[in-house]
Amino acid sequence: MSIITSVDTSDVRFPTSLQLDGSDAMNPDPDYSAAYLVIRTDAEDGLEGHGFVFTIGRGNDVEVAAIDTLAGHLLGRNVEELLGDMGATSRLFMHDSQLRWLGPEKGVMHMAIGAVINALWDLRAKREGKPLWQLLASLSPEEIVSLVDFRYLSDALTPEEALEILRAAEPGRAEREARLLAEGYPGYTTSPGWLGYSDEKLARLCREAIADGFTQIKLKVGADLDDDIRRLRIARETCGEGFPIAIDANQRWDVADAIAWVKALERFDITWVEEPTSPDDVLGHAAIARGIAPIPVATGEHAQNRIIFKQLLQADAIGFMQIDAARVGGVNENIANLLLAAKFGVPVCPHAGGVGLCEAVQHLSMFDFIAVSGSKDGRVIEFVDHLHEHFVTPVVIDNGNYRAPLAPGAGAEMHASSITEFSWTGSHSGRKVSA
Amino acid sequence: MSIITSVDTSDVRFPTSLQLDGSDAMNPDPDYSAAYLVIRTDAEDGLEGHGFVFTIGRGNDVEVAAIDTLAGHLLGRNVEELLGDMGATSRLFMHDSQLRWLGPEKGVMHMAIGAVINALWDLRAKREGKPLWQLLASLSPEEIVSLVDFRYLSDALTPEEALEILRAAEPGRAEREARLLAEGYPGYTTSPGWLGYSDEKLARLCREAIADGFTQIKLKVGADLDDDIRRLRIARETCGEGFPIAIDANQRWDVADAIAWVKALERFDITWVEEPTSPDDVLGHAAIARGIAPIPVATGEHAQNRIIFKQLLQADAIGFMQIDAARVGGVNENIANLLLAAKFGVPVCPHAGGVGLCEAVQHLSMFDFIAVSGSKDGRVIEFVDHLHEHFVTPVVIDNGNYRAPLAPGAGAEMHASSITEFSWTGSHSGRKVSA
Repeated sequence: MSIITSVDTSDVRFPTSLQLDGSDAMNPDPDYSAAYLVIRTDAEDGLEGHGFVFTIGRGNDVEVAAIDTLAGHLLGRNVEELLGDMGATSRLFMHDSQLRWLGPEKGVMHMAIGAVINALWDLRAKREGKPLWQLLASLSPEEIVSLVDFRYLSDALTPEEALEILRAAEPGRAEREARLLAEGYPGYTTSPGWLGYSDEKLARLCREAIADGFTQIKLKVGADLDDDIRRLRIARETCGEGFPIAIDANQRWDVADAIAWVKALERFDITWVEEPTSPDDVLGHAAIARGIAPIPVATGEHAQNRIIFKQLLQADAIGFMQIDAARVGGVNENIANLLLAAKFGVPVCPHAGGVGLCEAVQHLSMFDFIAVSGSKDGRVIEFVDHLHEHFVTPVVIDNGNYRAPLAPGAGAEMHASSITEFSWTGSHSGRKVSA
Repeated sequence: MSIITSVDTSDVRFPTSLQLDGSDAMNPDPDYSAAYLVIRTDAEDGLEGHGFVFTIGRGNDVEVAAIDTLAGHLLGRNVEELLGDMGATSRLFMHDSQLRWLGPEKGVMHMAIGAVINALWDLRAKREGKPLWQLLASLSPEEIVSLVDFRYLSDALTPEEALEILRAAEPGRAEREARLLAEGYPGYTTSPGWLGYSDEKLARLCREAIADGFTQIKLKVGADLDDDIRRLRIARETCGEGFPIAIDANQRWDVADAIAWVKALERFDITWVEEPTSPDDVLGHAAIARGIAPIPVATGEHAQNRIIFKQLLQADAIGFMQIDAARVGGVNENIANLLLAAKFGVPVCPHAGGVGLCEAVQHLSMFDFIAVSGSKDGRVIEFVDHLHEHFVTPVVIDNGNYRAPLAPGAGAEMHASSITEFSWTGSHSGRKVSA
């Protein structure tokens, strides 16, 4: 038996605003940041659990404060008990009635809980000597169902239905795991599409994306319609007819604006329209989906929890679900999201534009392929080539595919030297831009 | 010209969990708390702006941290500029792209912004020598519209429609203000209905509520159906036929449970069913509303922002809108909520079970009566007789009606001695219960 002896937090901020990487219609100057935690125990194995909340700068300190408050729930606790029943452990945090008032299940406190849950999964995966995707894909359907909080889901997905989905995917697990290890999992790249780039840079990055083996790109839109038309024309001409190009408005529009704007771009053959409006607006997304059909709507990087995803699916509002590893209540809630998507037959294409998000979310898509949806069809994981060098096990992209990570853990561990170098001191002065 | 010289915060927690006041199906042991701020300036008038976020204990420190982070936006700023255009001031915080990532517009950071906005309104009302309700009701329709962020609302309410609503209410303002001053605004009481009370106490408090002039009571439900049937029978027998009795499930149910449970209680003539399920579940509320019709659904104390309220109205999910003074982004966003309710013809019956919520939210209902909906029909403000003695201008209830406050300000100011006595030190030991 071992106990948790420390939860150390760090306010890590990379000065990405000094370049225009990551610039979109709503986020002109993000500083990609992480409210980061390390869980340590008194076990002789010396293993640690690492997790983080991704933010874009100001307020990262508030996320750190939220994680610090949660540390009180962890210190001194029996590690084997926590890790042995991660469903109960998740509920321990989610159902705390006083903390729940701060959401419920949304925003700063919910993301902090997610980071803690993810750090515990990281520790468990390291203890079992497996990458997280493989650990999750080795659980029985019953064990997976026990991880999910079905509260508020039962009108769309019951535990029995979830079990059916998981049992139906059981027979092919070994074969799909072999395929995953051989082929990897397809990625798409957002790197060409940031708003701050020149036309020349856009065209060059489109060519590079294709040369690198990516089979889809994405462009940020929504700041200026004429610019969007020009940039989409360049992208379409450079990539050629039929090459999948998605667009991303980052919540810029109201319902009528979204429909009109997308109509003006539809001639460019759009794969999906991402975040057309407020992430809270289920009915708005549904109205937009009807208005721009057959172009599908995609959203999720800001969907606060499984209850929003449930409704987006119930309302036929999305053609793609974009889970995020660090927005919801961690691995457990994302398993609920994967099961909901499978129930409604909607492909999951995770969001990963940020720091550490590619490293973290790939595990969920790979688990989905092996044990939930059983399919890679129509599914791609976002890839943005930012800041990977700060991670101990950075993602490996091979001809446009995420190679399945083999190192034990959940992928979130940052180099100690990066944490030290980019710990926030109140200004970016004297810092190098890390690209 | 004056500038903001300090923003002081306090973590104030009242040990209400030591009694069973405030105990409901989801919140068994709340410690009514306030993440409290005081804005001071270098003006010679010595006036201060007071505001708070209400929480129920753990995590109050995180709200304080969020307010502390916002202080950096305030220090050194020109007070007249901030107060003179409160629409722009609200957007200054709401549209900060980096802070927005922490929500957007929900949870810890959004509530903290609301507290700051409310503290600025408190300062402005004190400077103008008016209670907030009167200050707001003295603004022109154009000025009121300028306070509202219509982003994500335009499919349900445009600035032009808002202006029409406000103009239509303009002629009767003076007469309604006189009526308000003479009659007050009706309240209802939740005091009899907490789950922790004995049957005898329930019956006694029902009799007292009627004797005190209240024209509606509310009972907490959702923990045990047999108990709820017994408690509702006692309340109905004590209050008599036709006396309005609402019930409140505090988010306890999934959709099917809600419908079945309420059906089992419908014989007791229910005025509304409050918070039947997750506050995020617009479609769930709509399904419940259809399933329990003609009993109306009420919700809002946890509705994170105007976008959720918009959808609840669009989906015919609520018969009563329950705004909360300290949940959304402050006075400005609550004006949006009042306008949405007026557009859809739904009465607003604010939530006020907490600390300071009665003192704060009464201003919004009174403003609504004079300048927005123009009506008190079917409208009541919740009243819970907790902790009012800690406020400099506590609410005055007169024969079941809120008397219109006359003191300048927004009502949020707590006694300095209460702040000192109940500032959190890490435990309740040695504290008296304040009832």
